[in-house]
Amino acid sequence: MLNYVVDRTSFLEPFVVDVDVDAATMPKATNHLVRRASAMRGHYADAAALDELIRNGDPLHYEVFETPVPEEYGHLMYCISKLQPGRVGNEFFMTKGHYHTVLETAETYLGLQGTGFMVMKTPDGTFNAQPISRGKMVYVPPYWAHRSVNTGDEPLVSWCVYPGEAGHNYGDIEDEGFPKRVLLENGQIVMR
Amino acid sequence: MLNYVVDRTSFLEPFVVDVDVDAATMPKATNHLVRRASAMRGHYADAAALDELIRNGDPLHYEVFETPVPEEYGHLMYCISKLQPGRVGNEFFMTKGHYHTVLETAETYLGLQGTGFMVMKTPDGTFNAQPISRGKMVYVPPYWAHRSVNTGDEPLVSWCVYPGEAGHNYGDIEDEGFPKRVLLENGQIVMR
Repeated sequence: MLNYVVDRTSFLEPFVVDVDVDAATMPKATNHLVRRASAMRGHYADAAALDELIRNGDPLHYEVFETPVPEEYGHLMYCISKLQPGRVGNEFFMTKGHYHTVLETAETYLGLQGTGFMVMKTPDGTFNAQPISRGKMVYVPPYWAHRSVNTGDEPLVSWCVYPGEAGHNYGDIEDEGFPKRVLLENGQIVMR
Repeated sequence: MLNYVVDRTSFLEPFVVDVDVDAATMPKATNHLVRRASAMRGHYADAAALDELIRNGDPLHYEVFETPVPEEYGHLMYCISKLQPGRVGNEFFMTKGHYHTVLETAETYLGLQGTGFMVMKTPDGTFNAQPISRGKMVYVPPYWAHRSVNTGDEPLVSWCVYPGEAGHNYGDIEDEGFPKRVLLENGQIVMR
């Protein structure tokens, strides 16, 4: 059985949010998560290259734009995820990645701009990576930790929807790491 | 408490689906729901006008494109909804509308093409309508029955996401009807 209780106090009126599918922006988002290079310590193989990036201006790494809905069963969270292009050493820019706290919840990522991969793993170590770009929707099924990787030269932007109660569990995947990294080697994109 | 049980046998590998946000299509959808005018009996005020439309070729009314995922808790259903333009008498083409069987589940509709409204009501009769078009996302909160209405002259297309266990309850809203209809009167779009 599930470990949450339906809260009928969370009744909402319907509403509209501007989601510009051409500019790949949510122009009036009220929640704006910003992660710079300095927020990514421990995630890349080449820590010295990350340190150098942080010293040289600590550039914007990725952003998440949302408007708030109740983080509880029945609601749907939604966001624009925007990951800048770049590399740390030979490793492409990526998000931290997370499991959902309620592990058995999925997420949909509809690509709006850019080119990259959704890199995924299960708690028992199975690895999967799917290409994402404008016009491709990646289905992240229940149980899969997921991270976006930008292998192109423009921002990788997607429209995400996930269940309200899902939550974010960054700690476990930070401890485990993902089984493969996405690297540029001799001009080729490789996973190893 | 909720009336479903987590089914861990439904483990899925991640996958990609083509969702063309420019053409507003899901070109490789394997599930394709088609509703012609003849499927809409009882929904429009002007039954004679609908009968005439049915006699004159029974035109395509709306379509839903999907690829299958398990219809159970944790998964997310997704679809392209495509509603043709037109009128039955002075009433704009619309979908049947439905509650979710699990009433406390939301849905997101991201507009990709066309112009119209998402018309909504609660079981206790509260009415709401929100504009939808390319670049507008309508949030249908838990408890709200919802119907798309096309007030433009091209198909109204949106990208929908809703919880796997939500289900469709067409019967109750068919019995109740929506409190207002969307009509063309003297060249103006009105709700009454």
